Amino acid sequence: MSGELPCPPDFADIRQAALRLHGLAHRTPVLTSTCFNDRTGAQLFFKCENFQKVGAFKFRGACNAIAALRPEQGRRGIITHSSGNHGQAVALAARLKGYPATVVMPDNAARIKVEAVRGYGAEIVFCEATTPARAATVQRCLSERGGTFIPPYDHPDVIAGQGTAALELLEDVAGLDLVIAPVGGGGLISGTAIAVKHLRPNCRVIAAEPANADDAARSFRSGRIEPVATTTTIADGLRTSLGELTFDVIRTQVDDVVTVSEHAMVDAMRQVWERMKIIIEPSCAVPLAALLEGAVDVAGQRVGIIITGGNVDLDQVGQWFGRAPG
Amino acid sequence: MSGELPCPPDFADIRQAALRLHGLAHRTPVLTSTCFNDRTGAQLFFKCENFQKVGAFKFRGACNAIAALRPEQGRRGIITHSSGNHGQAVALAARLKGYPATVVMPDNAARIKVEAVRGYGAEIVFCEATTPARAATVQRCLSERGGTFIPPYDHPDVIAGQGTAALELLEDVAGLDLVIAPVGGGGLISGTAIAVKHLRPNCRVIAAEPANADDAARSFRSGRIEPVATTTTIADGLRTSLGELTFDVIRTQVDDVVTVSEHAMVDAMRQVWERMKIIIEPSCAVPLAALLEGAVDVAGQRVGIIITGGNVDLDQVGQWFGRAPG
Repeated sequence: MSGELPCPPDFADIRQAALRLHGLAHRTPVLTSTCFNDRTGAQLFFKCENFQKVGAFKFRGACNAIAALRPEQGRRGIITHSSGNHGQAVALAARLKGYPATVVMPDNAARIKVEAVRGYGAEIVFCEATTPARAATVQRCLSERGGTFIPPYDHPDVIAGQGTAALELLEDVAGLDLVIAPVGGGGLISGTAIAVKHLRPNCRVIAAEPANADDAARSFRSGRIEPVATTTTIADGLRTSLGELTFDVIRTQVDDVVTVSEHAMVDAMRQVWERMKIIIEPSCAVPLAALLEGAVDVAGQRVGIIITGGNVDLDQVGQWFGRAPG
Repeated sequence: MSGELPCPPDFADIRQAALRLHGLAHRTPVLTSTCFNDRTGAQLFFKCENFQKVGAFKFRGACNAIAALRPEQGRRGIITHSSGNHGQAVALAARLKGYPATVVMPDNAARIKVEAVRGYGAEIVFCEATTPARAATVQRCLSERGGTFIPPYDHPDVIAGQGTAALELLEDVAGLDLVIAPVGGGGLISGTAIAVKHLRPNCRVIAAEPANADDAARSFRSGRIEPVATTTTIADGLRTSLGELTFDVIRTQVDDVVTVSEHAMVDAMRQVWERMKIIIEPSCAVPLAALLEGAVDVAGQRVGIIITGGNVDLDQVGQWFGRAPG
């Protein structure tokens, strides 16, 4: 959490991550949909990280970072903070390696997420739901217990781990013209860009985010990290600002950042549930929403979409889609 | 609709159906779930017909029956009745062969289903939502227009088509001890039993249905077709009574019929959405509910489950799972 900033990973780090993840992470399937091909005029390939362990791509980065530790480091424990999928990912990855894990969570975290982290055997330390309280609590845990801090995105091994999803996608699908993924903190899109630009330099890489959390688009245009202004998007995975490392990659290797409305996102999510019969979370629908809204020109192209996760609270579904219960 | 009853299909008919369906129906994936393996103490293999065309196994039977017609027969048109997945299946299968289709639907059919049938290019003829009105309307259409009637389950080619799902499952998964599928009219379970008992005679075949529509269980015990007494189950695909042909197969080739409560069904459906990140309809959750409730002893066994379909009205989800919208 201090000292000189490390470099972003390169393609060799992603290859090494893929070796580390073998047997620990799922190689997720790539699905296609005639319906969405017809609606976009493109050929779409959905890399289904909603079927990944803990239900999200986050497992790749956390698992790679933890598997990269020397055993004596790992045995001193892993510490992270998260109100979402990263906490579950760290908890499960640590358990698989037999290392103790501590997850700092805001005291207003959803019950279902607290239970999931606890179910994977991690200790939970609650803190106030503010950034300073969270940082102070992590720091306190590190001083009291020692151990290694694994941040949710701004870490070379986390970025390299996330890049393995795109690596598999390009191994499974030939001739892609474009790969599109959501951007929150930027771990996924930067790992994706490093993998894609190495394997297929002419393939475009585009980041998509909610207009209500358009910090990545503003940062991309201004050339410096712009903080998130509001957090009113329902895409709870995408409310974070970029990191130093991830922005460095996005600035240099991502071709564009596009934004979509909340309505388009919920509509795309619903269409995926109805047509593809898979559960995706709101954040996950952002790239497809961008294609359906015409924010990216994809006519006649072969397009890879990273489906990031499927962790939703089904109690909320009525609010997103529905009529009042009868 | 009249004359002597034909024989049930045999395994050769299922093989032939598989050839006819090649290139028309999807070969659907088989998914596994560590979570449900742990909860049942068995190894479960989910044959995902929710990813089938029109979102349900019904496409197999309709498509086989239509593909079996001589072209001059087909061109005179296809007629069926359905308030559910069979109507969509006939409409799409007829369109793929270039034949005109007419679907008789109750005038209270869900808007989403009417639109789906129309979207596949079939003509819709509405009738009152009663069995006599439906039969009379089908008969009138047949006299006025000619054409071939394809019933939803009690037809050798429909049964043979449905049996191809189990055929694929046994090709993809070795050493199954049990295959379990829901029973409504019996088309799926009878096709499944014919395929399984031919390929693997010692593999058990079990039918599962809601206790609120337990006509198959009562028929299996009494040895004659018992009509459905109530239709209060939310498993709308399983409210029908058995047919003559399907009962003949069930009576002789199915090992048992088990029932589950409405609560267990909804709970199993929710668990599948949450854990496997796939959308399944209520009818579809019945076999897994039976395993989770311990209605079938599966400890240590390899169990195939036919996941029948994923067509749900998302407007209803809040009613099934949720709290009131906030």
